[in-house]
Amino acid sequence: MTAAALILIDIQTGFDAPVWGPRNNPGAEANAGRLLARWREAGAPVIHIRHVSREPQSPLGPETGGTAFKPEVAPRPGEAIFEKSVNSAFIGTGLEDHLREAGIDQLVICGLTTPHCVSTTVRMAANLGFSVRLAHDACASFAANARTDWAAGMAPLSAEEIHRGAVSHLHGEFATALSTASLLADAP
Amino acid sequence: MTAAALILIDIQTGFDAPVWGPRNNPGAEANAGRLLARWREAGAPVIHIRHVSREPQSPLGPETGGTAFKPEVAPRPGEAIFEKSVNSAFIGTGLEDHLREAGIDQLVICGLTTPHCVSTTVRMAANLGFSVRLAHDACASFAANARTDWAAGMAPLSAEEIHRGAVSHLHGEFATALSTASLLADAP
Repeated sequence: MTAAALILIDIQTGFDAPVWGPRNNPGAEANAGRLLARWREAGAPVIHIRHVSREPQSPLGPETGGTAFKPEVAPRPGEAIFEKSVNSAFIGTGLEDHLREAGIDQLVICGLTTPHCVSTTVRMAANLGFSVRLAHDACASFAANARTDWAAGMAPLSAEEIHRGAVSHLHGEFATALSTASLLADAP
Repeated sequence: MTAAALILIDIQTGFDAPVWGPRNNPGAEANAGRLLARWREAGAPVIHIRHVSREPQSPLGPETGGTAFKPEVAPRPGEAIFEKSVNSAFIGTGLEDHLREAGIDQLVICGLTTPHCVSTTVRMAANLGFSVRLAHDACASFAANARTDWAAGMAPLSAEEIHRGAVSHLHGEFATALSTASLLADAP
């Protein structure tokens, strides 16, 4: 059986920009780094996803420096990197073909941000037939990831509420949500 | 400019099964029916999505009768119907080709359930380049649509909390969330 691939989504310096507002899980990057170290030790497949916005001035755009990977998860030579410009890492990229060709059918996914690029990628992965484990504490959300102005009188959601909602919508339907510690005890 | 297509997702009798638990938006089906009536009046494109589970005994499986459309949104002869077996109406179906061939680039989406099939379809639609309006009060969520057992001590989310979270994660990123009344004032 081919080992599960670790997919690290958009863990980029652009998410340090103030525009995203308060975040949860300050240890998400360190947890992602722990998973990455374990996957490297095991020689198991690692895939880095980088968001390159089509809007040059976006915090994740090519002109702001925000497309750089954070140091905790900087790719090593030879590790696969896929660039995307939408939320799903499966749209406009060779990710699905890469996984099929390598015979990989199990994924461990983590990264930024839980309700947007992580959730969308987890959903598509599951719907394409991959078995997905979500490292929930190696993901994080920002206050800017949800807007409540569509509902009269609805209070803003905190980053923690957004994260918890997003994971809860995925868990049991698209993925099994697990802590980094429990993934490390079993992985890869 | 081609009129926006109305996409009605999984508004099926299988969602009357008790297994889904309490729901929100009891008027969702009636609102979907109002949108459908307006789209028909205008001769604008209507697309029905039907979930046919691969698990025969699922409430949305072929052996339980739950694949029938609810009467408020029963298709008329000549209206497009796409069947799917996963959450996204774009995976394993001809939906994207159908929209591209018809020159449709704007979608109004409603249906069941907000955090699962509706959210996943809205996300993929947006990532594939379609402009999406989400009729939030023509969607509904069930208590069974989220599981909080991954987080120690996290209370269960109510159907209304699940719905509000799911719409808030989509609004402004993947879609514009609007009420049925405001869509009818403007549509199609």
